[in-house]
This record gives sequence, structure tokens and C-alpha cells, in this order.
Amino acid sequence: MIRKEYLMTPGPTPIPHQVSLVQAEPIIHHRTPAYTELFVRMVEGLKKVLFTGNDVLTFAASGTGAMEGAVSNCFSPGDRVLVAAGGKFGQRFAEIAKVYSLEVESYEYPWDEAADPAIIARLLEEKPDIKGVFVTHSETSTGVVNDIRAIGKVVKDTPAILVVDSISGAGALELRTDAWNIDVLVTGSQKALMTPPGLAAAAVSPKAWEMVEKAESPAYYFCFLKTRKKYDSDNPESPYTPAVSLVKAMSTATDLLLEEGMEAAWERHRILAMCTRAAVEAMGLELFPKTLDRAYAVTAVKAPEGIGGGDIVKHMNRVHGVIIAGGQDRLKGRIFRIGHVGYYNFFDMVLALSALEMTLSELGFPLELGAGIAAAERVYLEMTSSSG
Amino acid sequence: MIRKEYLMTPGPTPIPHQVSLVQAEPIIHHRTPAYTELFVRMVEGLKKVLFTGNDVLTFAASGTGAMEGAVSNCFSPGDRVLVAAGGKFGQRFAEIAKVYSLEVESYEYPWDEAADPAIIARLLEEKPDIKGVFVTHSETSTGVVNDIRAIGKVVKDTPAILVVDSISGAGALELRTDAWNIDVLVTGSQKALMTPPGLAAAAVSPKAWEMVEKAESPAYYFCFLKTRKKYDSDNPESPYTPAVSLVKAMSTATDLLLEEGMEAAWERHRILAMCTRAAVEAMGLELFPKTLDRAYAVTAVKAPEGIGGGDIVKHMNRVHGVIIAGGQDRLKGRIFRIGHVGYYNFFDMVLALSALEMTLSELGFPLELGAGIAAAERVYLEMTSSSG
Repeated sequence: MIRKEYLMTPGPTPIPHQVSLVQAEPIIHHRTPAYTELFVRMVEGLKKVLFTGNDVLTFAASGTGAMEGAVSNCFSPGDRVLVAAGGKFGQRFAEIAKVYSLEVESYEYPWDEAADPAIIARLLEEKPDIKGVFVTHSETSTGVVNDIRAIGKVVKDTPAILVVDSISGAGALELRTDAWNIDVLVTGSQKALMTPPGLAAAAVSPKAWEMVEKAESPAYYFCFLKTRKKYDSDNPESPYTPAVSLVKAMSTATDLLLEEGMEAAWERHRILAMCTRAAVEAMGLELFPKTLDRAYAVTAVKAPEGIGGGDIVKHMNRVHGVIIAGGQDRLKGRIFRIGHVGYYNFFDMVLALSALEMTLSELGFPLELGAGIAAAERVYLEMTSSSG
Repeated sequence: MIRKEYLMTPGPTPIPHQVSLVQAEPIIHHRTPAYTELFVRMVEGLKKVLFTGNDVLTFAASGTGAMEGAVSNCFSPGDRVLVAAGGKFGQRFAEIAKVYSLEVESYEYPWDEAADPAIIARLLEEKPDIKGVFVTHSETSTGVVNDIRAIGKVVKDTPAILVVDSISGAGALELRTDAWNIDVLVTGSQKALMTPPGLAAAAVSPKAWEMVEKAESPAYYFCFLKTRKKYDSDNPESPYTPAVSLVKAMSTATDLLLEEGMEAAWERHRILAMCTRAAVEAMGLELFPKTLDRAYAVTAVKAPEGIGGGDIVKHMNRVHGVIIAGGQDRLKGRIFRIGHVGYYNFFDMVLALSALEMTLSELGFPLELGAGIAAAERVYLEMTSSSG
């Protein structure tokens, strides 16, 4: 067979052809009405995607850049913050906070579970000088998704702001930035937003802006105030040369997402996740997360006894051209992850699951070929007939 | 006439079709051998473009991000640095240094002249605790280009490191990072590197690395140490999701530039600048810079008596579809700038100059149509016949 590749990782993800192609259009200058129109369309589109009326700031950077921006713009050295971490990306917030000399209270919860809002409430009560709570919405490294709505309720009446990394959540999972009281919502272009990597965004609430105005950590490239000022000017633009080809791409992608409708996109991801889960369980495998509620962006699966997670990933890539992800950090070798966040429909899952069935069989794991696909099809028919 | 646009600003600049098209290719994952090969090819290509054996670090960001990285990675609060500024981008280094609480010695030279290496030498002698000298190679806001070779000679035997912003210089103007003793060379993708905006690079010398290891300013997304560590690993990659479509583009663009040859590319830019200068002078206009040596990236021209620089820019865009740039900050309205940094050849200048002749005529400035073009053609024939 010829090699034909299928990207099924939880980011970067495949993008619609309409989004690919606009990148190849001639470069336009960023201080022209044509660019301004494009840029404003993207930012206003993002506000709808994120269900927010707050300012949405965008940066030419990976999502991590906006995570750093949330830390450096809102806090000063010595400020106490609470970081809830149950995976590699939760830990990243703690790392950044330490780099900026914040006083980090760590709430480390098990990697296969969600954070407990009650514990966050207790920690906030115990240390009322906590100025910020950092939580990961969708923890890409484990597949677990936190209950941000519940955490938002806990944080909103405290002096602390709620900072949420929804890099692999936004667009895929229910997310209501304003209604859920999220003060700084950070996301990136390369997952459910169906755009190549290289753009990051932060939605900043009035409560967060109050802190930004007082914060004393250094911030230049990711400076929120300067970015807002440029957007609020007569000719909205960025303080520095924007990634115009990516802005074109994201502008097209947000149009597509809004055309589908956010609730429909969230439901699509839920269906794909439920089909994938049913399939891997029918193959005799076990899901990694204990908390499966809301875990619809990436399906993390335990590697079966005697087979390394990395071997499954490598075999699927080398033999079948299907690219999935392995485990990171302490989960290396122990799990593998199938992404369904972004521009996917059911048949993308079918091909990935078919490659997985054959891979497991080739690696000596006993299973009935087709059993996973059958389970996925059953769930799909059930879920879509009831909703249609 | 139909509207057909011609981008003649000093960044972003038009890019070759080969570079445009690779961006539209399917997204690949950044932790795969295919990506590693592409990434290594880009970084090793950049080393050749920059004439350096030093580590070249790349970031998904505008050039300003790497400028900030140079400040935050090499210095600690309170460190004394000398910033030579003769335009908007020189001032940017001073702004960033102040954000990081460095003690800034300002050497402000006239905006139409180059920095004087002898003054930098004197300032370094007077304040031997200066730890860094920041200079702009090609000051995009004025068209003036500094003599980095001479400044490098002055700095190299002091404890200070030399940090150079060559965002609009690298690839267009003679630049020998190692031979000229540049310790941190910063550049961006969107000018002579013929790539869309969104990638930045920094070449870091051993002398600079010694400072990086001791520096105490916060740096996370632009952390040099972490970026080097990931590049030096068995599977070279970036610490955070890279802008894969832009990496593809820049990898293709550096191939094209190296195929042309760096000396040939520098000579091309010199020829285009000399033709442009001859043309605008033949039109009866005056060049803005007094220091014209090495000023081959952008031609800054004084707006004639009674006509605003911005009016020329707007008219050329609206009526002729030719996009040039106006003056920034204190030069607003006083100058206009024609870019020839990047993927340009002689005939691109012909069209820009033709649009300029007609624009001036339409705005009531007396000139002989065709005179500028004739002058450009004469210079072009002379310069290319003597070199052929």
C-alpha cells in the first residue's frame, strides 16, 4: 500500500481545506483596511466561540505563550496563587508561576481524576490571600476534563481570579467563559479551532483587568494592556507584526465553527468520544481516566499488559500511517491517546479504530477484528438517531 | 482597471509561490521524524544564512518576541545595559530593557544617521559595568543601517555582550554573525527570509550563554536554555507546539535563499536600493537618511513640501494598488518608505516607482513622468553589466 497519513493526535490536528488554502494566499500588510477587517472578524468570532463579551487578545505564539501572559500580566512577585494540577499541562502553570516568583500553593490531584471543586473552595478559605486559581479545562496529557462551571462558582466570590487553560477544550467542549466566571481563558489555534499552530488567545474579564493594572511582573510581547489598546484603537491591530497567514486561517476556521454552531460542535465531540470509548472497551482495553464526565477531547487508553503504549503508537504510525500520541511524563509507555478534538467526524474515528484493531492484533493482543468498529457504529447510530 | 495589489512595504513582504504553497500542505505532527527533518533543515539553513556556528533558537512569535528573549534570558534586574537607538526599533530594545528593570544607558543618535562606534566605545569605557550593548542592524523605521562590524570590534573585548536586532537586515544585508562578534542576533521570518510573519530566531554565542546561565529575569516561553536543550536532544524539537506550517515555509525559503547564495542576495538588495535611490532623486525627491552606506533594505524618502507622506502612501494604495509604508512616530507624515527587502527583483521596483511617479503627478508635484524609471534602468544596467 502507499503511505497515506492520518493525523489523529490531540494537536496539532488536521484542518479543513478552506483553512489550509487561505494560508497560501498572497501576504497582506497588517496596517491596511483589508487586514483590519479580517482581524476584527477573527477576534469577534472568537468571542462567540468562547461565549464571552470580555476582551479577547491574540498573540502570534503557541498556547503556552498566552499561559505565560496570564501569569506575567495579572500577578506580581510574591503573590500567592493556587495551581490545580493533574497532568503535564496543569504542572506547566505551576512552572510558569514559579519562574515569575509567585508563591505557589499546589493542589495536585490524581492524573486519572478531575479536580475537586470542594477542595479548591477549602484551600481558598484557608488562605484568603490567594490571588489567582489556575486550572486546566481539558488536560490533554490524560484526557480528563475539569468541571470549570463548578470551580467558577467557588472562585467567583473570592478576591481571586480564575485562570483556565482551555487549549484543547475551547471549541470541542462546553465552555461558557462569562457564565462560568472565567477571568482569564487561554486557548490555542491548533486543536478544536481547526487552525495550524502559532496563534494563541486570552479572554480577560473586568476582574482580571483590575489585577492587570496593578501587576508588576515584566511583560512585553504578551503585554495585555498594550494588546487591548491596539485592538481598541480606530484601526484595530496588534502591537507587533501579526502572523497574517495564520490570522487568515483562524478567521476562516472560526467562521466554519460558528456555521456549525458551538452546541453542535460540542455534541459532535461528545459523540466521537463515546464511540471511541465503546470501541476500545469492545477491543478489551481499559480507559485511563476514572473521571469520564466531559472527557470528550482526547481518549486516553491504558496500554494492555505486556505491550508498551509507545509500541502501539509507533506501529500504527509506521505500518498504517495513523498518527496517535503516547503518554507523557509519568504516563510514558503506560497509555496511548487518540485525539478527536478538531476537524473530525465519525469516519475519521473508524479509520483510527480499524488501525488500532489491526495493530493490537499484529502486536499479539488477542481480540476479535471488527468488534471495536461494530461497537462504535452501534453507539453512533444510537446517539445520532436520538438527536435527529 | 481591476484592483491588483503589490506589497512593497518593509515587512511583511511577498513570498515565493513555493513558500506559499507548502503552508497549505496537511498539518504534520511535531513529534515525528518528518517534522524533525524539516525543523533541523530550517535551523541548519538559518545558521548558514546568518553566518554562524552558534546555536540558533527559533520561536513561534514575531521578531519582537526574540528581542524580549534576548533581554529576559541574558540579564538580571539592575544590570546596566547600553541601548543605541536611532529609530522606533532601537527604542523598542530600551522599552523592553526597562520592563525587565535593567539600568538603561541610552545612546540616542539622530534618526537620519548611523550610530557612531566611537561613542559606543567611549560609553563602554566610562561605565565598565555595562553588561550588554543593544544595537539595531537595519532600522526599519528610518532606512538607516548600522556598521555592526565596527561596533562588534568595540564590544568584543569588553565584558559586555552585543545584542543585534537584524529583523530587517538578515538575508538582505551583509551580516556575519560570528566574524562580527555578535553575541545575540535576533531576526524574524517576514522580511528577507521570505516567509510569512510568525517565526523568530535568535543566534546565541558562547559568551552570551555564560550570561544566560547566570541571568535571573523570568523567561518561560522564550527560555533560551529550554529551547537549546530540546534542540540538542536525540529528536530535535521545540519545547512547545511549533508553528508547523510556518516552519515548512521557512524551511523552503531558506533553501531558496541558500540556492541564490547569501552574497548574491546581499548584492541584489544593494542593486535594488541603488536603483530606487537614483529614481526618487531623479523625480526631484530627497532621501531621508544622511548615512546611506549599507542602507539597502528600505528606502526612506522625504515627503516633498506641501504633500504629506501619508497622502502619498494612501493614494498609491487606493488608486494604484501599490502598498508602501509611511513614517512612524516622529517621522509620521514626514517620510514614506519603499521596501525592497525580501523576494524582489528589479521589475518589482519598476512598478513601485511607476506608481510613485504617477501618484506624485496626481498630487500636484511637478515631475517628468518616466524620469525616475529611466534613472533606475541606467543604474541597473551599469551595476549588472559590471558584475556580469
